[in-house]
Amino acid sequence: MAKLWHKNYELNELVEAFTVGEDFQLDINLVGADCAASLAHAHMLETIGILSKGEYAALKKELLAVIEQADKGKFSIQRSMEDCHTAIENYLVKQLGDTGKKIHTGRSRNDQIIAALRLYARDFLLQFHASCTLLIRTLLEAAKLYQDIPMPGRTHMQIAMPSSVGLWALSFAEQLLDDLCLIDTAYKLNDMCPLGSAASYGVPLPLDRELVAKLLGFSKLQNNVLYVNNSRGKIESIIIDALEQTVLTLSKLAQDLILFSMPEFGYFTLPQELCSGSSIMPQKKNPCALELVRAKSASLNAYSLHIKAVVRALPSGYNRDFQETKAPFMRGINTALACVEVMSLSIQKLKVNEQNLLKGFIPEIYATDAALELVKKGVPFRDAYKEIGLHLDNLKDYDPKQILKAKTATGNTGNLCYEKAENELKKREQAYVNYNSHVENTYKKLLGKRYPFFKAVF
Amino acid sequence: MAKLWHKNYELNELVEAFTVGEDFQLDINLVGADCAASLAHAHMLETIGILSKGEYAALKKELLAVIEQADKGKFSIQRSMEDCHTAIENYLVKQLGDTGKKIHTGRSRNDQIIAALRLYARDFLLQFHASCTLLIRTLLEAAKLYQDIPMPGRTHMQIAMPSSVGLWALSFAEQLLDDLCLIDTAYKLNDMCPLGSAASYGVPLPLDRELVAKLLGFSKLQNNVLYVNNSRGKIESIIIDALEQTVLTLSKLAQDLILFSMPEFGYFTLPQELCSGSSIMPQKKNPCALELVRAKSASLNAYSLHIKAVVRALPSGYNRDFQETKAPFMRGINTALACVEVMSLSIQKLKVNEQNLLKGFIPEIYATDAALELVKKGVPFRDAYKEIGLHLDNLKDYDPKQILKAKTATGNTGNLCYEKAENELKKREQAYVNYNSHVENTYKKLLGKRYPFFKAVF
Amino acid sequence: MAKLWHKNYELNELVEAFTVGEDFQLDINLVGADCAASLAHAHMLETIGILSKGEYAALKKELLAVIEQADKGKFSIQRSMEDCHTAIENYLVKQLGDTGKKIHTGRSRNDQIIAALRLYARDFLLQFHASCTLLIRTLLEAAKLYQDIPMPGRTHMQIAMPSSVGLWALSFAEQLLDDLCLIDTAYKLNDMCPLGSAASYGVPLPLDRELVAKLLGFSKLQNNVLYVNNSRGKIESIIIDALEQTVLTLSKLAQDLILFSMPEFGYFTLPQELCSGSSIMPQKKNPCALELVRAKSASLNAYSLHIKAVVRALPSGYNRDFQETKAPFMRGINTALACVEVMSLSIQKLKVNEQNLLKGFIPEIYATDAALELVKKGVPFRDAYKEIGLHLDNLKDYDPKQILKAKTATGNTGNLCYEKAENELKKREQAYVNYNSHVENTYKKLLGKRYPFFKAVF
Amino acid sequence: MAKLWHKNYELNELVEAFTVGEDFQLDINLVGADCAASLAHAHMLETIGILSKGEYAALKKELLAVIEQADKGKFSIQRSMEDCHTAIENYLVKQLGDTGKKIHTGRSRNDQIIAALRLYARDFLLQFHASCTLLIRTLLEAAKLYQDIPMPGRTHMQIAMPSSVGLWALSFAEQLLDDLCLIDTAYKLNDMCPLGSAASYGVPLPLDRELVAKLLGFSKLQNNVLYVNNSRGKIESIIIDALEQTVLTLSKLAQDLILFSMPEFGYFTLPQELCSGSSIMPQKKNPCALELVRAKSASLNAYSLHIKAVVRALPSGYNRDFQETKAPFMRGINTALACVEVMSLSIQKLKVNEQNLLKGFIPEIYATDAALELVKKGVPFRDAYKEIGLHLDNLKDYDPKQILKAKTATGNTGNLCYEKAENELKKREQAYVNYNSHVENTYKKLLGKRYPFFKAVF
Repeated sequence: MAKLWHKNYELNELVEAFTVGEDFQLDINLVGADCAASLAHAHMLETIGILSKGEYAALKKELLAVIEQADKGKFSIQRSMEDCHTAIENYLVKQLGDTGKKIHTGRSRNDQIIAALRLYARDFLLQFHASCTLLIRTLLEAAKLYQDIPMPGRTHMQIAMPSSVGLWALSFAEQLLDDLCLIDTAYKLNDMCPLGSAASYGVPLPLDRELVAKLLGFSKLQNNVLYVNNSRGKIESIIIDALEQTVLTLSKLAQDLILFSMPEFGYFTLPQELCSGSSIMPQKKNPCALELVRAKSASLNAYSLHIKAVVRALPSGYNRDFQETKAPFMRGINTALACVEVMSLSIQKLKVNEQNLLKGFIPEIYATDAALELVKKGVPFRDAYKEIGLHLDNLKDYDPKQILKAKTATGNTGNLCYEKAENELKKREQAYVNYNSHVENTYKKLLGKRYPFFKAVF
Repeated sequence: MAKLWHKNYELNELVEAFTVGEDFQLDINLVGADCAASLAHAHMLETIGILSKGEYAALKKELLAVIEQADKGKFSIQRSMEDCHTAIENYLVKQLGDTGKKIHTGRSRNDQIIAALRLYARDFLLQFHASCTLLIRTLLEAAKLYQDIPMPGRTHMQIAMPSSVGLWALSFAEQLLDDLCLIDTAYKLNDMCPLGSAASYGVPLPLDRELVAKLLGFSKLQNNVLYVNNSRGKIESIIIDALEQTVLTLSKLAQDLILFSMPEFGYFTLPQELCSGSSIMPQKKNPCALELVRAKSASLNAYSLHIKAVVRALPSGYNRDFQETKAPFMRGINTALACVEVMSLSIQKLKVNEQNLLKGFIPEIYATDAALELVKKGVPFRDAYKEIGLHLDNLKDYDPKQILKAKTATGNTGNLCYEKAENELKKREQAYVNYNSHVENTYKKLLGKRYPFFKAVF
Repeated sequence: MAKLWHKNYELNELVEAFTVGEDFQLDINLVGADCAASLAHAHMLETIGILSKGEYAALKKELLAVIEQADKGKFSIQRSMEDCHTAIENYLVKQLGDTGKKIHTGRSRNDQIIAALRLYARDFLLQFHASCTLLIRTLLEAAKLYQDIPMPGRTHMQIAMPSSVGLWALSFAEQLLDDLCLIDTAYKLNDMCPLGSAASYGVPLPLDRELVAKLLGFSKLQNNVLYVNNSRGKIESIIIDALEQTVLTLSKLAQDLILFSMPEFGYFTLPQELCSGSSIMPQKKNPCALELVRAKSASLNAYSLHIKAVVRALPSGYNRDFQETKAPFMRGINTALACVEVMSLSIQKLKVNEQNLLKGFIPEIYATDAALELVKKGVPFRDAYKEIGLHLDNLKDYDPKQILKAKTATGNTGNLCYEKAENELKKREQAYVNYNSHVENTYKKLLGKRYPFFKAVF
Repeated sequence: MAKLWHKNYELNELVEAFTVGEDFQLDINLVGADCAASLAHAHMLETIGILSKGEYAALKKELLAVIEQADKGKFSIQRSMEDCHTAIENYLVKQLGDTGKKIHTGRSRNDQIIAALRLYARDFLLQFHASCTLLIRTLLEAAKLYQDIPMPGRTHMQIAMPSSVGLWALSFAEQLLDDLCLIDTAYKLNDMCPLGSAASYGVPLPLDRELVAKLLGFSKLQNNVLYVNNSRGKIESIIIDALEQTVLTLSKLAQDLILFSMPEFGYFTLPQELCSGSSIMPQKKNPCALELVRAKSASLNAYSLHIKAVVRALPSGYNRDFQETKAPFMRGINTALACVEVMSLSIQKLKVNEQNLLKGFIPEIYATDAALELVKKGVPFRDAYKEIGLHLDNLKDYDPKQILKAKTATGNTGNLCYEKAENELKKREQAYVNYNSHVENTYKKLLGKRYPFFKAVF
């Protein structure tokens, strides 16, 4: 079968291999979403008289068949077909003849790929949102469970002040909740229907773009047809930037866990089923998954940079460079989701060792507390600070749990206020439910059932 | 005057120079904001009995004096003082003796710098928001003014389809409006009060954190004290990531303008007052400002990456690495603002040359229109496409303006729907007015007047 | 078959999927190289008495069989086996029983993977070197062929001064020759034998590391066993950084070709067999391959950054993070090679249109020449510059070819000195021949024949 | 005083501020180098008859005066002058009238800035080379001094196998020696004379480019005049990439020191004069300099990326974007040098605590040794590995120093072979001496004495 643009010459083989690249493989992930968008497009073409009712019905049947095949992993794309759009059009032409040749009326592969990526990303973002709220809930439960367990607070990695496992766990829950705001903004910016933009400049046909947007459940139509194409890579990088912030937070959590499960600390223990061994050292149980989360926080940055560097300073309208954004985008979303799920598991399985945590409460950890006792006796803080600093040997011992309780200001160990995060989390969970049921209903109406257009690969 | 932590030893000179770095110079930008935060902190210390009313009044007087000096560029920071926090505390001690030594009660430089950066960033974001809405308005006006001027639409930089200057200008307006959503999210995440977190683990004093947040006009208290410190660099990078998306959009606008003001196109003319010359070639008038916008879109990426790479995988609590995030953050915000202002000016002064634009309407530009005419006669699109593609020599000429009008689907040249963007812009303008008047009122109440805590440097 | 470190517990499934990642797929590329290294290791184990002659012979036979299978694409790695090292050891154990269990004596997968990557990279670098010299020769031939063809020289993308196609083509040849110096340095740093380092700290066995290095044709033994593991990711990023410089050069060449083959210039024509079409616009012939070279220059940067960000600030010794460097390394080398080959083809097929080039010789292009004529009459340059700049209308016309010939200083249009680049190129070609025949001889001795351990994937 | 290109219009103020940027401040660092290049250019102009002997003598006198002023920090550049080239030409015109107006004959600011940066970078690279060899020598001495001190070897940050402080220190010395190869390649690529390229296309004057190259001590003339300008940013990024590899190595060294000076390990102690305190916690002594080295390894990456992202895909010839590469280049070289010097100091002052190091020799550290004992008894390695792994409780204790000595293979603890690194270091030290004395002689001949054209700023 031919390329869509095939006329009267053949492409050089090296150029074909180079320009197709991994597209025909990556596009396997997009077949379902592309067919859904084609179905909505065909429906609209029928309402404006370009397709007959019979043609539309025939196309619908075949598109649903492709979705079904793709869902079962049975739809394939040959390199010579370049991408999923070509493979699907060729399939329709083979099945339906002239009717298949009409599906591309009033559109371009450019707006097709954008539409497919948005539907795919929408499903991904819903799944990511759900995974994040689960991780946050896990951390929140840990914060409550361990709210009174002392933990040496550190700055510069050195022992600093008394803290608690609860404060530590809650800090990540709150940070991830704020990171979710970025995910939410990315979700909204992704939730715009691009179809009808054709190759960046529309077409002289009375396309009903609003109808297509509605059929696909987009909350908004992306208005300007040139902007549609100019946003390629931008929406993708906005999503990856948002994901990167989440994984950046996880890199700190992973680093803390790696450090504090070293035998010299022993604050935490990871169960062995989460640890890999060594091919040469019989005794090793290594926190490999955590190390990879740490590493993959850098990967997210590389993926975001990749996309943004590719689209930077490109002139208006479609440029082939855009194709190079697809792989880092797909890698990025799969990587981020995997990191969140692995961290949920790690927190769920984590063992906290109170005795080892208490070993860190050496006298110096109370130096600030001692200085503030002098302050309460009327000594100006800076003088109290010096006094204590010059006589650290005189520091007495305190009861860690008493000290933790005495920090009663909002957000401190004696007053964690975890219900704030809990309330925020409930809002996020509800938002997810609302988004998800809207999408669910959309697909049930359009396709008869919902297919998982995003399937995690890891 | 001494460092705040000075006790009984001197720092090695090389280490001092290395660790202080540019901090003492960069902090000149933060003196006002740091004093405002100190004032709110002092006010609170008075309400909880740590400062007397008289002490608070004395501190207020001196802090206002420092703000005034800083506003006039008369407050200086020596390298030996390390940063603005030290310089200000030293000044207060010098002026007020023991009272000055009390200002640091219940806080750390860690939460001070975060607070100062947030106030500074808040002022910046307001100014940036205002500059962006101005640029968007300028583009929107251009879109309306030139909505009927034909412009060759390009893909792959090659002539593709008929388009208009209006469609082109509006595409940027809409894109920048979406970019503003990211700015808005960044504004909200920045708008959390960090004070009361001390060195990451709070203090055993009944600090009234809510009061401080309210006095400084923050819309929210950042709850968990460890999260406060862990968010250092994150909020900064979220802001820079948002700015980068705006400047990424501008890189495309700049590239278009550079390309299309080349004499071979001549679509646009930049007035010479925006163009620099060459030291050797007498005839040159170069679009230097646009080239620098193009370049600086890369700079924004470097600044964001810089910040994120520094904080990646740092363990919980303050780490000195954070200091290295200040310079790229400050460079980033100034760079982004400058780019927006330069682009506003460029669009305002741009001359559009209709005759040159029309020269791009070669017959091939109408190939898709011709194919769609066959479609209207019943030919399946893929056949029509091939038919036209194999007989390009037969393409007839069209009237560009007619063709543009015929594209009536939403967001196309014949139906730009610029009122959508206009409505959205009005919402953004109103949001800015609301944010800004809240900040204005806050400072009038706290300081008696509003000082410009962010001053653009370029 | 089991993991090498399997003892008495099973890994959590999610953790297994996450930690293995794409390794089992990527490692398909390394099977040959890993076997070659194992063979050298086994040979050495025999010389120090750990393997008997019979055991070594059996291992050799089976390792050669694996290499042969892998070369034919018939050796597979299951995810449960994690990597090629495990798959190969399991194969040997299955074939040879206890003898297979001895192959891992005195080594770790850590030094195995480093060794395999170095052999793989060595073969890649040779191929890349050869492709680069071919591209340089192509450019050099073009420079000679078109040395007298006028071409408007541009700065700021605006017409600046008379230039020639020869000067333009030669500029890339010289730049690529300098880029090759970086490739050469990378080759030398990669050419160190890591084996014998085990898991970073060696083993208490009298391993003959020098022998292994010699058998594998490395020009040097990497001495310190901890340095061996600490260099993971460093050598890879040094290679990718070097490749990036080459592709950065190509991004300029691609951009020039894309620009100057726009119909408004028409300086160059790309034959249609190098151009793809559009799915909607029948007339389009797009320079897709060149656009992708432009895009992929950004990819190279992302790959290099990825690797360096992963290894940054890791403590000494092996860390699992290293695994995350393998994919960007492999993607980077394949991408860079593809870009070079596509550019060679593009230059070979390029058509140069002298008439269109001459159209750029508008009077203003001679402004500097006119100023220098005044200089020759004794007018100080700065005065001459102003004089001409204020009276551009008076500029007379020149003969472009005469002007080009008049620039006789070294490296100018009238004196290209291409023989310098030619001599340099011959040296590089000879260096390649020497490197390559050394590697060829090594493998013939070790394996009986040379297998292509690096096979380009694109 | 006017801009060099000033004719009959004034630049818009915002555009001026934006386009000049920090250039007029950064260029303060380049005044000396720019004058030296001008002097060589003037000398050459005299030999080809464009300047008289008297004019040359006058120019030489004034250029030497400017160098002298700049060396004392007394030469200033106004923003309105844009850059050092303008400030210096204006100065010469003011002092010498028409003679001053002749200095720019046959050159452009484009090739001037490239020449100035190369001379500046050459001086920097010499200083960096010297600092690196000092650091390597320090590490080498430490390796010898502590070669028998046991240190727990770690992988995955967990205790792995017996190692020594000597092995650890030597690993960094060897790594930095390899990093120096990249510095050396960068030095050679930077060591090409660009002058005579003018604005990218040369001039029709019989400039003697070889003479200028020789006068400035460059080892090579950069031949093609377009390549000269196209290499802007490339050479800079090659230098920063090389520096980044060195600082990447230091990030590991810093991380090790930070980790192992935590009280829970106590392997190393940093003297307090290298440690900063906290403003709130009286007891803190923080390894701030090391944390900043860790952070600044990320900065180097950002600087390199910044430069490469700016120049990517720019068309041939000078583009104003190049200007944006100057700041990251200058920041990068100063940052890298500071990191090396701080690490030299840290290693020199480091205290090694043998007793704490020995605490890490828990029984499990010997698991591999135990397995290899079974191997010596004839058990196949994989069986021995499992046997030990399933019975870790039976592990007996060993004498750490005995075990270290037993690892006798090359590069192991019992056979460090530090003399290899020592020999390599001597070669590098000699190379530096040769490079440096050549530069010294060049400047003595050209300027009468050597001025420090690169002055470290930190």
